[in-house]
Amino acid sequence: MKDTASAPLFDTVCVVGLGLIGGSLALDMRERGLARSVVGRDADEGFLATAVERGIIDRGLSPSTAGMGGCDLVVLAVPVLTIIEMLEEGFEPGTLVTDVGSVKGPLVEAFRRCRERGGEYRYVPGHPIAGDEKSGPTAARTGLFEGARVILTPVERGDDEEKISSLWTGVGSHVDFMDPLEHDAIFAWVSHLPHLAAYSIVHAVLDKDPGWISLSGGGLKDYTRVAASSPRMWADIALANREFLLEALRGYRHSVDRIYEAIASSDRDGLEDLFAGIASVRRGMR
Amino acid sequence: MKDTASAPLFDTVCVVGLGLIGGSLALDMRERGLARSVVGRDADEGFLATAVERGIIDRGLSPSTAGMGGCDLVVLAVPVLTIIEMLEEGFEPGTLVTDVGSVKGPLVEAFRRCRERGGEYRYVPGHPIAGDEKSGPTAARTGLFEGARVILTPVERGDDEEKISSLWTGVGSHVDFMDPLEHDAIFAWVSHLPHLAAYSIVHAVLDKDPGWISLSGGGLKDYTRVAASSPRMWADIALANREFLLEALRGYRHSVDRIYEAIASSDRDGLEDLFAGIASVRRGMR
Repeated sequence: MKDTASAPLFDTVCVVGLGLIGGSLALDMRERGLARSVVGRDADEGFLATAVERGIIDRGLSPSTAGMGGCDLVVLAVPVLTIIEMLEEGFEPGTLVTDVGSVKGPLVEAFRRCRERGGEYRYVPGHPIAGDEKSGPTAARTGLFEGARVILTPVERGDDEEKISSLWTGVGSHVDFMDPLEHDAIFAWVSHLPHLAAYSIVHAVLDKDPGWISLSGGGLKDYTRVAASSPRMWADIALANREFLLEALRGYRHSVDRIYEAIASSDRDGLEDLFAGIASVRRGMR
Repeated sequence: MKDTASAPLFDTVCVVGLGLIGGSLALDMRERGLARSVVGRDADEGFLATAVERGIIDRGLSPSTAGMGGCDLVVLAVPVLTIIEMLEEGFEPGTLVTDVGSVKGPLVEAFRRCRERGGEYRYVPGHPIAGDEKSGPTAARTGLFEGARVILTPVERGDDEEKISSLWTGVGSHVDFMDPLEHDAIFAWVSHLPHLAAYSIVHAVLDKDPGWISLSGGGLKDYTRVAASSPRMWADIALANREFLLEALRGYRHSVDRIYEAIASSDRDGLEDLFAGIASVRRGMR
């Protein structure tokens, strides 16, 4: 903690889930003096021990600890179906909760259902666009969120949203606000679908001949890297964003079929035009 | 040219097609003294002028120049359907020809057909696994083939094959020999299919909402980069390797469907097992 820094944003933050994202955020919060103290929880005792050893958190809370030990912020950095369960179950009245899940609509729904049943915690949904195929507390590192985009999909706008926004800008990120369902629709296509396409490629080659996997000169290598991401995390994302993702997969199959037909009909000019239209997109992005 | 080097492998090499691969090979041959002189041809006069300006070739041959000006090696670095046409048409008796095409079977067939009709040139089919989405002589650079794998699919084994192998090891590559059809079957799955999957992803998102293309946090970005490759080159590859590629695309659709069904049926454990099986591949590669 920097003693020259202004007062920390939070007194004690509890990070639930000390993987790549949770662990890296804990490290940055400690290093940048954004929290006076960072404690952590993880269902995996080995993860918790590693996080303490590596100085990712000040101390670990055992799974049996009731509540979150009076923390003024709880960060949920576990797979999204677990986040949904926790939001549904609720937290001590007044607790401020945020999360880092890649899907937002069903989380907001779980929060609303809990509130309708009398739940009194506060919730600011968040999604940092950061991370890679590595996972676990050994992959956690400082600076992971530097320059990253973080999307908040808040239920309302007030002091809580400002504080969570300050937390992310404090670790170097740019914050955007978005509607939760708009977020899920967009990310189904631009993030979740590309990920499933990578799984599909590796699955198809494995099915054809597992020995061929190592023969690629680059084409396949990028896909095997993407497909090496945490299976549990991605199974959760796929199911939490099920409807949008199924729609995206249907659209994708249509595009694969379109290319298949152009090749099957040996339509050279049509194929080149099709590819040229797709290739021009990147020029448009510059 | 290094005057301390041993005698160059070739006297005059003619590179046909001064794009990324042809231009980079020309640069390396000149810089490493593998050829006494490197001349070039390109249907695009602008490419030819750029190649001379940038010192990629010693001089350009105009498209009207008959033959290849007495070169002892001709390197075909044009899109594969053009390579097939040139091999079919033939070269002056005794000329040694090689190529850099990503498909090999139909090229060997074209050579055989020409030979049956009395053609007397010699041919060593090659495929350097190098390059990226950039194209044209401005993208050409030295060292592109350093550490790359080059696959030769020769019709026979003799001095010609040794010389072409030495050319590639001379620019820093590792040379492997393979049957042409085995090459095409494998590369349909590990190189051409991943490329078409990238085109399909970008096509699908464009179809859904072109504005979403720029919203990705990495997932989509890798695909738009791959999809920015030369449309003509890839249309040619897709059609030249049509049968193997259609088989690979059918296998791919089956894998996409498999994942679609697991998500549609909300089979959480099945989905996680499926992803875990795919993810384990990379661990096996290490």
